[in-house]
Amino acid sequence: MMSSHVNIEIPTIDDVLEARERIKGHVKMTPVLTSSSIDEMTGASIFFKCENFQRVGAFKFRGACNAVFSLSEEEAKNGVATHSSGNHAQALALAARERGIKAYIVMPSTAPKVKVEGVRGYGGEIIFCEPTLEARERGLAEVIERTAAHFIHPYDDPRVIAGQATAALELVERIRDLDIVMAPVGGGGLLSGTSISVRTRSPGTAVYAAEPAGADDAYRSLKEGVLLPSVEPRTIADGLLTSLSALTFGIISSNVDEILRVDEENIILAMRHIWERMKVIVEPSAAVPLGAVLQHGNIFKGKRVGIILSGGNVDLTALPW
Amino acid sequence: MMSSHVNIEIPTIDDVLEARERIKGHVKMTPVLTSSSIDEMTGASIFFKCENFQRVGAFKFRGACNAVFSLSEEEAKNGVATHSSGNHAQALALAARERGIKAYIVMPSTAPKVKVEGVRGYGGEIIFCEPTLEARERGLAEVIERTAAHFIHPYDDPRVIAGQATAALELVERIRDLDIVMAPVGGGGLLSGTSISVRTRSPGTAVYAAEPAGADDAYRSLKEGVLLPSVEPRTIADGLLTSLSALTFGIISSNVDEILRVDEENIILAMRHIWERMKVIVEPSAAVPLGAVLQHGNIFKGKRVGIILSGGNVDLTALPW
Repeated sequence: MMSSHVNIEIPTIDDVLEARERIKGHVKMTPVLTSSSIDEMTGASIFFKCENFQRVGAFKFRGACNAVFSLSEEEAKNGVATHSSGNHAQALALAARERGIKAYIVMPSTAPKVKVEGVRGYGGEIIFCEPTLEARERGLAEVIERTAAHFIHPYDDPRVIAGQATAALELVERIRDLDIVMAPVGGGGLLSGTSISVRTRSPGTAVYAAEPAGADDAYRSLKEGVLLPSVEPRTIADGLLTSLSALTFGIISSNVDEILRVDEENIILAMRHIWERMKVIVEPSAAVPLGAVLQHGNIFKGKRVGIILSGGNVDLTALPW
Repeated sequence: MMSSHVNIEIPTIDDVLEARERIKGHVKMTPVLTSSSIDEMTGASIFFKCENFQRVGAFKFRGACNAVFSLSEEEAKNGVATHSSGNHAQALALAARERGIKAYIVMPSTAPKVKVEGVRGYGGEIIFCEPTLEARERGLAEVIERTAAHFIHPYDDPRVIAGQATAALELVERIRDLDIVMAPVGGGGLLSGTSISVRTRSPGTAVYAAEPAGADDAYRSLKEGVLLPSVEPRTIADGLLTSLSALTFGIISSNVDEILRVDEENIILAMRHIWERMKVIVEPSAAVPLGAVLQHGNIFKGKRVGIILSGGNVDLTALPW
């Protein structure tokens, strides 16, 4: 191990089962919803695992919670830190509050007010920085130097991945005989965890990923067999802009059957169908898998498909229609 | 009985249990959701029965389905008819399709396009009329004269009430020891059914209703002890504009502990909280009970409260914020 906050071991299903026990009582057992009109439209039977109903409105709370409660007393005593302008920021702040430790969140000064208030509402301490990756990393290094807080990366961390994996674990235990389970892919934490749970607990089920065509670094990386960065990603699915890490690339390379690219119009159409037909609020990133079903319909016809609806944090005053 | 389509008997819990068996396989067993942030905000423990996830997006499908499947072959053979511009229209069209009979829906020519398309999508035959109550009733009489279809009223019908009652039945069987169950009140079908299920299956639980202050005919009727009509109702909760009937007034008078009036600003605030905190789409009418909790907070502090989220059919391009 390079340092106390880096651990490059690939999580196993035992880690996932331990994570489930560890975070029980903190996370919600989210429902699985179906929609006869979406099934009619797609010719598939789709089971939506509603992580948008998870605490903080996204699956991210599972991973953050597992990481925070995995820490020893010694590791936890100075709190935790991360840089994020997204759902991981709120998730880590809430997980830290539940453990009774501090959370330091480095956020770009341009972060939406609603996200800033979300982190503050959970008692997180915000350190603003310029909106560049370099400034965020420098800001984080300074915070850790000053506070000795424990860094929790949003996805490049086996404890986080094991936590995210518990969503798919619940799904395949509840809904049997799925042909495919599909998750969106950004940094790859959710997809890595999903693939570990599905491969081991439902070995007959294929694991698919859905990725915006405008941010297709995971697709290109798997095709080339080397980790390629996300270059100038452009998509409405703002949770999927990040690149895979070495850890998530390795897990996904071994476990994932296919990555499907989805155009913007199908992401927006899928989002609207979920809102209108299911009465469920999802953010654009969460709609990408249904977008893949709409765009690549022949793959899914007649199949039983599990989809992780990853989150529902969206600005209700700026909808894409 | 006055005629084949009027039946003024008050439904019993046995009718409700029969309704549940009859509509099983057609209706969804909807989930009950909670929100720690709404609980924190209100000081209550609130359990939301999500009938907005019901087929056609509203509890109305339960009642329509029970009525349609209660018909004898003889009664059903010429189809069913109603006048409605709301959720009952779509509910009846879908229930009729599932039984394989025709549905004739009299709708005002001003009905929103999305509702018209909804009814058509379920195979209902639409007869347009002028947007007055008189024209609707005349239109309906003409349709029945022409087709000999069986009239299914949206709420003044014990079969419909028994169907609506199954939602609260599921709620009190799943969540024990509720102090209060609350439903919105318009024509009173949902509230009547709710009160029958709660009174008999959870006798220690109080039954409350929430009504827009701008359409408070049920509140005034109960206070005066006589059935008063809804006069020029004005509220964003467009599902709650109708008046009680003699049947629903009778049931509600016997069974309901309290009707709470809710101001428009609290309806809109409650609707926004449900969207933002729970990631769940509700129409304004469905938000009225949480609006009552916000407006009459002291009644609910420390209580376990079940709320029926009645529906989620809302125009996503015209939100009230």
